[in-house]
Amino acid sequence: MTQANKPDIKYLFEPRSVAIIGASHSKGKIGYKMVENIVYGGYKGKIYPINPKGGEMLGLRAYTGLDEVEGDIDMACIVVPAKYTFDAVRECARKNVKYLVVITSGFSEIGNRDEENQIVEFAKENGMRVLGPNIFGIYSAGGKINATFGPKDIMEGGVSIITQSGALGIAMIGKTKAENIGLSSIISLGNKADVDEADLLEYLVNEERTKVIMMYIEGIKEGERLICKLKEITRKKPVVVIKSGRSKRGAMAAASHTGSLAGADEVFSSIMTQCGVLRAESIEEALNWCKFFTEIPAPKGENCVIITNGGGIGVMCADACEKYGVELYDDIKTMKDAFADAVPPFGSLKNPVDLTGGAAIEDYERCIRAALNHKNIDSIICLGCEAAVFDVDKLPDMTESIFKDKRNLKPIVFSFVGGSRLEEKIGEMRRRGIPVFPELYSGVSCLGAAYRQFRYSKAQVEPDAVVDIDADTINEVIRGARADDRTFLLAHESSRVMEAAGIIMPQSRVARNLDEAVKYAESIGYPVVMKVVSKDIIHKSDAGGVALDLDNKEEIIDAYQAIMRNCKAYKADALIEGVEIAEMVNIKAGVETIIGARIDGSFGPTVMFGLGGIYVEVMKDVTFRSFPLTHREAVKMVSEIKSYALLLGVRGEKKKDINEVVNTILKVGAILQKCSDISDIEVNPLIVYEEGKGAKALDARILLTKSKVVE
Amino acid sequence: MTQANKPDIKYLFEPRSVAIIGASHSKGKIGYKMVENIVYGGYKGKIYPINPKGGEMLGLRAYTGLDEVEGDIDMACIVVPAKYTFDAVRECARKNVKYLVVITSGFSEIGNRDEENQIVEFAKENGMRVLGPNIFGIYSAGGKINATFGPKDIMEGGVSIITQSGALGIAMIGKTKAENIGLSSIISLGNKADVDEADLLEYLVNEERTKVIMMYIEGIKEGERLICKLKEITRKKPVVVIKSGRSKRGAMAAASHTGSLAGADEVFSSIMTQCGVLRAESIEEALNWCKFFTEIPAPKGENCVIITNGGGIGVMCADACEKYGVELYDDIKTMKDAFADAVPPFGSLKNPVDLTGGAAIEDYERCIRAALNHKNIDSIICLGCEAAVFDVDKLPDMTESIFKDKRNLKPIVFSFVGGSRLEEKIGEMRRRGIPVFPELYSGVSCLGAAYRQFRYSKAQVEPDAVVDIDADTINEVIRGARADDRTFLLAHESSRVMEAAGIIMPQSRVARNLDEAVKYAESIGYPVVMKVVSKDIIHKSDAGGVALDLDNKEEIIDAYQAIMRNCKAYKADALIEGVEIAEMVNIKAGVETIIGARIDGSFGPTVMFGLGGIYVEVMKDVTFRSFPLTHREAVKMVSEIKSYALLLGVRGEKKKDINEVVNTILKVGAILQKCSDISDIEVNPLIVYEEGKGAKALDARILLTKSKVVE
Repeated sequence: MTQANKPDIKYLFEPRSVAIIGASHSKGKIGYKMVENIVYGGYKGKIYPINPKGGEMLGLRAYTGLDEVEGDIDMACIVVPAKYTFDAVRECARKNVKYLVVITSGFSEIGNRDEENQIVEFAKENGMRVLGPNIFGIYSAGGKINATFGPKDIMEGGVSIITQSGALGIAMIGKTKAENIGLSSIISLGNKADVDEADLLEYLVNEERTKVIMMYIEGIKEGERLICKLKEITRKKPVVVIKSGRSKRGAMAAASHTGSLAGADEVFSSIMTQCGVLRAESIEEALNWCKFFTEIPAPKGENCVIITNGGGIGVMCADACEKYGVELYDDIKTMKDAFADAVPPFGSLKNPVDLTGGAAIEDYERCIRAALNHKNIDSIICLGCEAAVFDVDKLPDMTESIFKDKRNLKPIVFSFVGGSRLEEKIGEMRRRGIPVFPELYSGVSCLGAAYRQFRYSKAQVEPDAVVDIDADTINEVIRGARADDRTFLLAHESSRVMEAAGIIMPQSRVARNLDEAVKYAESIGYPVVMKVVSKDIIHKSDAGGVALDLDNKEEIIDAYQAIMRNCKAYKADALIEGVEIAEMVNIKAGVETIIGARIDGSFGPTVMFGLGGIYVEVMKDVTFRSFPLTHREAVKMVSEIKSYALLLGVRGEKKKDINEVVNTILKVGAILQKCSDISDIEVNPLIVYEEGKGAKALDARILLTKSKVVE
Repeated sequence: MTQANKPDIKYLFEPRSVAIIGASHSKGKIGYKMVENIVYGGYKGKIYPINPKGGEMLGLRAYTGLDEVEGDIDMACIVVPAKYTFDAVRECARKNVKYLVVITSGFSEIGNRDEENQIVEFAKENGMRVLGPNIFGIYSAGGKINATFGPKDIMEGGVSIITQSGALGIAMIGKTKAENIGLSSIISLGNKADVDEADLLEYLVNEERTKVIMMYIEGIKEGERLICKLKEITRKKPVVVIKSGRSKRGAMAAASHTGSLAGADEVFSSIMTQCGVLRAESIEEALNWCKFFTEIPAPKGENCVIITNGGGIGVMCADACEKYGVELYDDIKTMKDAFADAVPPFGSLKNPVDLTGGAAIEDYERCIRAALNHKNIDSIICLGCEAAVFDVDKLPDMTESIFKDKRNLKPIVFSFVGGSRLEEKIGEMRRRGIPVFPELYSGVSCLGAAYRQFRYSKAQVEPDAVVDIDADTINEVIRGARADDRTFLLAHESSRVMEAAGIIMPQSRVARNLDEAVKYAESIGYPVVMKVVSKDIIHKSDAGGVALDLDNKEEIIDAYQAIMRNCKAYKADALIEGVEIAEMVNIKAGVETIIGARIDGSFGPTVMFGLGGIYVEVMKDVTFRSFPLTHREAVKMVSEIKSYALLLGVRGEKKKDINEVVNTILKVGAILQKCSDISDIEVNPLIVYEEGKGAKALDARILLTKSKVVE
């Protein structure tokens, strides 16, 4: 597909004029609702309802066709049935429309993939882009346009929602409003035939209204572009993702629902973390986070303090903090400093600070203010159990006076347990915009998300690792394999690729006679292994064609003679080319690891790392990243597997050469990125020795793409 | 402590008369509130407020002392300050009170452990039992008594709450009422100086009002009794537990809050599962489950169907089902049978059944009824996204007509996403008692809990495994060690214990001369290991006193002579008692496992199982159970570790002798249960061979209790 004059994405969000092809006079129809929402939403640009009957519609002139429209059209919403859609698209091309918002369904989601592809290809050739098909439209506060058939009242605010599910998207317009969450935009992606998340992020990254972006994803098509955009945007604003189909069963359901196979969920999850994206489990969690990000200041440090009037909920909250990665502050001196005056004698000055059940609201407020005023404390979780002395009627004013005080620029979370009177008060507090949660786990989950964003955005930007490899040699090897019509490399070819990338494999040379055998053994260094080289002898061990652990010249001579004798006896007419002399690798002196890299269907070049054999196979103790990769991420990757302790050295063993593992990961990545004919590389095992002693790849399997890239 | 005439627990829940020692005339005081709540709650028994000033109180005569009371007193609530508490307890003893409800705080929770112990000991000696101290009291619908200083209005219902946190307990009285959850009782345990969860369960197990029990636990004291009670009760009614202090940080907070060190959370968790207890993470989750259990019929089978009008939430729900262990039904024929008429052409008949966004409430209802009427479908999750055609105003009546229909005896969960109008409707549905959840994960979590209860209660009762061991021999070994003043066993003593329990260790005998060495080697079977036996030679290998892998008589002779020669050279004056001839164990032919059993501080005899060395140490891949243990639980234990696949055989290896692992676990348990002097047994490693070929314990370490039990 070629794209002629790709229009700027801002015309999707801020069109100067919009046509509705299929605008209807009948109130119940989507073609009516679209026009109504655009008009009702106060759109300032030109509106062109298109209906073959012409006439008038909500005070607007309806045009019988696009040709009748005189001005330029930035966006055309298409709501005609599927069978008329291509015709409408052709009409749009003649009118040089920039964006097609194809509401119509009945394309790839029901198997009608060809027509969808044809429409998109045609649109691109004619300088147009397609949102959809099979969507409810787009709302954009920036363009003051509600080009959806969803609710007409959308509350403006700082959250932008990108959704692959239409039904859920429409429901979320209502839900966000009910939860007092304002939207800067909501975009329905539907079949994602052309415009995708990456395109939309292009606009949202610098759009000032948007403080946080929420995406509901079912499957990823062009993951590489998305990753690139996400890495950029998450440094500036939080991105919250819900991806359904995380379970085996869910993935099956997603595949049958969207027709797109979701990538392995573990890969998705690791890569989102790499991009600084916050993944929520449920809609509720995602919306809670979004609301929190738009209303609460970001933390400036890690020190969190819990203030409670009940020991039990304090302990539960400490559990929640550990679960969500919120660090509890514990400097005894500071704690005494801050709270000695506010906490009663039976209370606890340790974190969680416990005012006990005897604390009145006033004690509670004093304690929170003490925390707010202390420079060493960065965030506060305030918990309360309803009790006779804890007068919940005072909570709304107290919490508001604390929360709305502009000097209090610390994240603060409230959570209370109690009866219906308290529930009413919680409702009131929420309406007043105070971050109060009926369940403390929800509140701590928000604070945890804020901390993850804080850590990601404050980490220094590091350029992607650049690794020098000899790509020419590798491509020469590939050409050889292609000439043979192979899509896999032979062992010696893989070895050459590894060598060209600077990944060390055991040394080995083929000796054609005894003299050479001795010479090579001495140059490689004892001990060595000797194996017969003969295409006539497949099972070398069976033939007596292998000798291990040869320590000196005499043993080489004996072994050589024995192997020749054995092989002749085994197969008299075998053509023996010589013997391979290879370094004898001491596997037990190192730790077995696996590095697997491939072109992932969703995310492009990705890499997996794990500890050898059983750890990967049985314990599923693996981690993933996408390339390009920074050095820091590669280090993080290696350290986040559960069996990392084995590389650090357990049971008195010395620390292993972790640095070399990181380098090998980056080298494998460089191969995959620079040699686009290669689709899969598996280094297995990579034996990692003591720190400073490097690592050796005992085997490497390399697959090529089905179609040639390099000529 | 001795307990004279332990009073029946029913007098705590259904006292015929109650005294309030410290009853007060002042409205703000706890001593007033207690009397007020008892009177207001409509208690039918005799009420005796005790106040030195006498007078009248809420229409009741106040007595100046217990002696003035003529009738018997079943329960005395003590609300006097800590320093007067013991006096009050003495007064109660003179009056033969049965239960002391000690509201007063200022005992072990602030370090005043001695007085608390003295009070309890005195009470027990005098036939009384103590609830508390440091509690808010007890409410019991069975006794129509609200002997708490919490809210006076308690809604009667089917949930009984046992709480170790007072503040949380009082708040939960309010919270349950606000959530429309009725209580059959709520009991504050406070410092748990005497009456504990197990005592209360004794009453609750057969109390008909109580449909479900919820416990908030911070620490366990007499876990063995609790386990025993839990196993009994969970077959009859669900028990939901929240235990705080599950994280490292939370456990620290709990220790400083309650003064009681919580056991390791993993142990608690495994044992609760063993007992059929449902562990909730948060208060909200626990209360949701409790409400669900009181309102929703139990499932009769595993087949769950999701019905949705949005594909996206259907996929998310499938994820939630996998997370919470709800099995999605997928018999294509049945699904077609049930839903072909109800699902539109573009919808999905596969589970999740997708009616698409075009479905009206009526289509939706038709589909749900089809599921309710189909005999192969056991439970239903109904999801909906608000949309123009999905008229949420109709939801309350529709869901009620389905849910309240007595013929529909299947568990059903509703969850809808949408705006404020829908939120109102959800509120209305909840008030009407319909199981509707604003967040689908909460709903599926309830159904998951119902399924776990279903599976536990339907499983056949299996008697605890009985294993025959030679306890006399073991106790004889113990006496020997005790005589030496040791609290550990020597290697040969541990071997004798293993042998007496039928756990196989490598054979070994000490030969005093070469003839014996040959004889023993031949009786054990080649290959064998030979080691010098001499208390003068500690480092046997250094002395050249070890020979491995001896295959025949000649090698025995050579090795014997070499060892004698080496040892004499190493230390000329060493007294050599002989050589140990031991079976040479092929470690590589089996899988290394570890069985560790000990008397846990909270739970008594417990056992840990995991795969050898690194799996346990690095991967923390272990599981726990308490003894006694059924055979089925022991099998479950072995199969639930992540590395179980290694026992099943990976990479073409044969299946290992899992049965022998199970037997060894049960034998270790038998030792711990029958020989009460033993506190710790570690069998490490236990090498497990191919199925049918058994297992061998290479080493066993056994520790004794600090004080003697066996004489």
